[in-house]
Amino acid sequence: MTESTSKNQPEGYIPPRVWSPRASYGGQFSSINSAVSGARFEQELPVGKHPFQLYSQGTPNGQKVTILLEELLAAGYSGAEYDAWLIDIFKGDQFGSGFVDINPNSKIPALVDRTTTPFTRVFESGSILIYLAERFGAFLPTEPRTRTETFNWLMWQMGAAPFVGGGLGHFYAYASVKIEYAIDRYAMETKRQLHVLDTHLASNEFLAGDHYTIADMAVWPWYPGSLYGVYGAHEFLAVEQYTHLLRWYHAIAARPAVARGRVVNRTSAAPGEFLRERHDADDFKSLI
Amino acid sequence: MTESTSKNQPEGYIPPRVWSPRASYGGQFSSINSAVSGARFEQELPVGKHPFQLYSQGTPNGQKVTILLEELLAAGYSGAEYDAWLIDIFKGDQFGSGFVDINPNSKIPALVDRTTTPFTRVFESGSILIYLAERFGAFLPTEPRTRTETFNWLMWQMGAAPFVGGGLGHFYAYASVKIEYAIDRYAMETKRQLHVLDTHLASNEFLAGDHYTIADMAVWPWYPGSLYGVYGAHEFLAVEQYTHLLRWYHAIAARPAVARGRVVNRTSAAPGEFLRERHDADDFKSLI
Repeated sequence: MTESTSKNQPEGYIPPRVWSPRASYGGQFSSINSAVSGARFEQELPVGKHPFQLYSQGTPNGQKVTILLEELLAAGYSGAEYDAWLIDIFKGDQFGSGFVDINPNSKIPALVDRTTTPFTRVFESGSILIYLAERFGAFLPTEPRTRTETFNWLMWQMGAAPFVGGGLGHFYAYASVKIEYAIDRYAMETKRQLHVLDTHLASNEFLAGDHYTIADMAVWPWYPGSLYGVYGAHEFLAVEQYTHLLRWYHAIAARPAVARGRVVNRTSAAPGEFLRERHDADDFKSLI
Repeated sequence: MTESTSKNQPEGYIPPRVWSPRASYGGQFSSINSAVSGARFEQELPVGKHPFQLYSQGTPNGQKVTILLEELLAAGYSGAEYDAWLIDIFKGDQFGSGFVDINPNSKIPALVDRTTTPFTRVFESGSILIYLAERFGAFLPTEPRTRTETFNWLMWQMGAAPFVGGGLGHFYAYASVKIEYAIDRYAMETKRQLHVLDTHLASNEFLAGDHYTIADMAVWPWYPGSLYGVYGAHEFLAVEQYTHLLRWYHAIAARPAVARGRVVNRTSAAPGEFLRERHDADDFKSLI
């Protein structure tokens, strides 16, 4: 099968009539992935002193929320004080019963607002961004045009990043065997997404136009953050060619609140680049 | 390489230092996918008589918006009248200059609100749902708890469905060669997502609780709609085992507005199941 071989693809197989899982697939997440959702063990979540309890990890999706929380505090919204607890997804913390109660989808980040009666659960990074922005009336414009562009780009990020994380990240960085067809597919799509952003940011200071919003906070950790970071794919994808995107990326990186938010709930990185948990503004002093 | 062969995986290859596209990958979308965004030809968009101009196709993402528009009209919001124009993504209509102006990401659906000065562009299905719901004050609760659950599940859908459409749909239905590893990966994740919904709907009438919201309209065309429909994977994934999900699915399918919305901008389906364009409420009479 010459064509198949030339693409480094496997010989075609016929999928079974009804799918059933194998015992193991190999690779980094093999023991974590499952076709069944729900709690795997009993585990209450810890609770700190602040109004907001965040259960998260410093992945790109986790960073979105800690960046917004730090931006809110920097803007003077002291009601946004929070405890950020580590949910180590490599160890399966997301399958504890307490976490599943606040996010039945077992993904970080998840947030509990303890200022409401009863408490409010918020899950999905995009939902948490909207919740906090509406709660404090910040970083989500009320002017219709800018508000609409904020939602356009926030939703773009939510629908696009799975091709970067679940697609390119998996097949390029995590999968037990490198499958050229799959790597090609997601490399092309990720580059197309980078080009969409680069083109838009050539004539816009921020994603929604003149205002820094939750859309920027959602996109920044992924594009190109995740490519420099966890997936190590910035050279593979020639990220340096997207100069307008990089202009925007560096401008946002220079914000002190972003520098703080991006290190919260990270467990490994260069020294000074991670803070396992955050319970107080002074916790960041240990990084310097 | 015994392990690789046993999983029907290709021999491991070493990705190049810098990725570059092949001339063609084969498969249904080969000529459409590209690493570069933007317009490929000049093409103005048509404009009809109604306040809202929708440029779309009746895929699951397209159906979300036409279902909401039909629900708004059924609820008496006559300001939601719309023209639904076909953007045939298999023919590349999404790369015309007019379409790219309203959605630089070249994906359907995209909406123009012509009641504002200047006109407002809205892209990404989730953003359009929020825009219309806020515009008419309908299907997005203001009560904080239900509102938060609406956003939780709406964002869940936006982040989850790419694993169904871009993942399972591609590798199971569209890819030129069947790659067992990739099909297994996305079958498992899709089943996990179905199980998340099934568990939640075992104790909730709708996704946000007691109220039918834009979260239901976002999830319904995908879970399990897309599996019965475009991907033909309902038997492969044993969808019939998710009885609570199916209870909810059939309840929503029975709504007249959903029956109308789901057929708009479809180009092929069973007789009476598609309406290429919609410019008037009477257009649906041709289906009966």
